Amino acid sequence: MQNCPLCSSSGGDVVWEDSRCRVVRVGQAEGEAFPGYCRVVWQAHVAEMTDLDPNGRRHFMNVVFAVEAALRSLVAPDKINLAELGNQVPHLHWHVIPRWRDDSHFPAAIWASPKKSAVATRHAPTNVALSAAIAATLSEAEGGA
Amino acid sequence: MQNCPLCSSSGGDVVWEDSRCRVVRVGQAEGEAFPGYCRVVWQAHVAEMTDLDPNGRRHFMNVVFAVEAALRSLVAPDKINLAELGNQVPHLHWHVIPRWRDDSHFPAAIWASPKKSAVATRHAPTNVALSAAIAATLSEAEGGA
Repeated sequence: MQNCPLCSSSGGDVVWEDSRCRVVRVGQAEGEAFPGYCRVVWQAHVAEMTDLDPNGRRHFMNVVFAVEAALRSLVAPDKINLAELGNQVPHLHWHVIPRWRDDSHFPAAIWASPKKSAVATRHAPTNVALSAAIAATLSEAEGGA
Repeated sequence: MQNCPLCSSSGGDVVWEDSRCRVVRVGQAEGEAFPGYCRVVWQAHVAEMTDLDPNGRRHFMNVVFAVEAALRSLVAPDKINLAELGNQVPHLHWHVIPRWRDDSHFPAAIWASPKKSAVATRHAPTNVALSAAIAATLSEAEGGA
């Protein structure tokens, strides 16, 4: 769709994708504040989860959960946050955000006002490690999708 | 678990439930600002989606999507927001939030600072209507679960 930033660009470095969705790495300040933060973007311009058919929904969530599992194994956050909002960009994308008790916003959502400056002391996973971990988990969940 | 508010209470009026999860209506100021706002709470004390087995995850998401479908049919919001955060209460619960372009926070997340006071001009769905719409959609998705 014209004027949609997720139709006209990938939205970040692509670490995994198939014909239906892609996993992109969130960069810049948000990526530094939450090392490993990814978004899972549906390739087609669709606004709501219930606009997808049940198979598409299931696959999309399997990818979201594969990213969650990859982040838990690679960066061991204190909590994972998942969100599909899309008020500004109504093109389906899931936020998969690793959270730590000492991060800039904890325990608030990352969209609240920060409590303090970002602590960027954690090692961010490489794109290659993320990609491999996502593919391995997803292959287990879907039998090789 | 002791001291967990979602173990010691329902967390709101229960509009639908089974042995694995319950749908509760969010009341007070948040319920007025976002008429129809529900949370879907896993009955057991579990922190992360990837701590559930694949069947549990799938059922939980089917219930979340049934609530989304019910809200779309009953209150026709401009957007649905879905989120599983749990930084304050690490007992799995999904927020299913109907959003309108003229609501107090749009287009920001509801956890950001409000842009203006809540506009409570919309008709909130009754618990009975919500319950029936959730059950009907879920029955279609799961063949009568």
